[in-house]
Amino acid sequence: MDNQDRFDSIVMRVKQFCDARDWSQFHDPKNLAISLQLEASEVLELFQWTKDNQIKKEKRNEIPDELADVFYWTIMLANHYNIDLLSALHNKIDSNELKYPIDKSKGKSNKYTEL
Amino acid sequence: MDNQDRFDSIVMRVKQFCDARDWSQFHDPKNLAISLQLEASEVLELFQWTKDNQIKKEKRNEIPDELADVFYWTIMLANHYNIDLLSALHNKIDSNELKYPIDKSKGKSNKYTEL
Amino acid sequence: MDNQDRFDSIVMRVKQFCDARDWSQFHDPKNLAISLQLEASEVLELFQWTKDNQIKKEKRNEIPDELADVFYWTIMLANHYNIDLLSALHNKIDSNELKYPIDKSKGKSNKYTEL
Amino acid sequence: MDNQDRFDSIVMRVKQFCDARDWSQFHDPKNLAISLQLEASEVLELFQWTKDNQIKKEKRNEIPDELADVFYWTIMLANHYNIDLLSALHNKIDSNELKYPIDKSKGKSNKYTEL
Repeated sequence: MDNQDRFDSIVMRVKQFCDARDWSQFHDPKNLAISLQLEASEVLELFQWTKDNQIKKEKRNEIPDELADVFYWTIMLANHYNIDLLSALHNKIDSNELKYPIDKSKGKSNKYTEL
Repeated sequence: MDNQDRFDSIVMRVKQFCDARDWSQFHDPKNLAISLQLEASEVLELFQWTKDNQIKKEKRNEIPDELADVFYWTIMLANHYNIDLLSALHNKIDSNELKYPIDKSKGKSNKYTEL
Repeated sequence: MDNQDRFDSIVMRVKQFCDARDWSQFHDPKNLAISLQLEASEVLELFQWTKDNQIKKEKRNEIPDELADVFYWTIMLANHYNIDLLSALHNKIDSNELKYPIDKSKGKSNKYTEL
Repeated sequence: MDNQDRFDSIVMRVKQFCDARDWSQFHDPKNLAISLQLEASEVLELFQWTKDNQIKKEKRNEIPDELADVFYWTIMLANHYNIDLLSALHNKIDSNELKYPIDKSKGKSNKYTEL
């Protein structure tokens, strides 16, 4: 395990956690996608009624846990379809670097179609 | 770069992509959380009107890209709060291993409070 | 009040409920839209992990309350922009009747662009 | 039709629109709840990247249509379970008037459990 990549390692741990509990029977991808959406909403809920777009102090400690939930279901869905999330994200950024050239997009929030 | 951890490496790339475009001015955490939620909904949208809980074949190729978007905003929020996502998820699974002991939870979809 | 339209009457009650509590200061439209999204997620949560796409019996009684929450924030947003929801929906259905002619769309779940 | 309640009238129109297209076969409640959630996200998307919590001018005209979509799926779910949305909302406000007495909640955004 010493030399194992940290990302591979957590992907494997997520898989083993579910396998040990025989939970794959519940994990059709539509239910996984619903869970992902619900956890993303719990992240958003931390910002409900904030006026200054910053989180309330007493909610600050809940963020790592809520983001971990989103990350968990993202990995679960990726595992279901044998997707390597790191490659998928590298591809996405490759594509966004072309869509958003630095000289055109610097300091602007426009969508690439409006640059 | 040879020996750099693959996860640290993508977290760094996400940060550099935004820094180069001077986009941090738009990235208050409430807007990040909204973007995360919207991308999670786009994942869910791939399953809209499916009857068998499987994705339609013609949508299958869109999954890596949509999951990458969710992963991107998860990293963005984690970066904003200096959270190490891998540690956060390991902590979460540590806690879930206690909440869901294998002998009690095997083959059941109950919440831990109902085990 | 005897002859007042039932819909106008509830729209008015929602407005008075908030005005009496001086809550409009919190109700910028972005926060209203977040609340609407969060309540829609609570409706969806009732269906999490269901296999047959039907709600679990013990959750059935929560539906009226959760739908009422969604309805509440929909009215709040409509009030903010002086939108008559009934007219907006009639316009929408007018438009969908043109997009989805009965003879072309009967028994099909295709989007109008694919009919 | 002259004397028909405007709300009953739109609920009926929604039902007839679907019945004429034989769409109830697709409308299991889990799919309805997903559609409701997706439309609520489209409302939220109008506020993405706004800094002042107000909608961008060029998006303003899309609000009635997006709110109509949310309203449509709310009615669809209510119809599925034979719920009268107006009664459900009146009940909800009755309950909130008790949870949030005017003298305790005036000018405060606290949850009722924190009043």
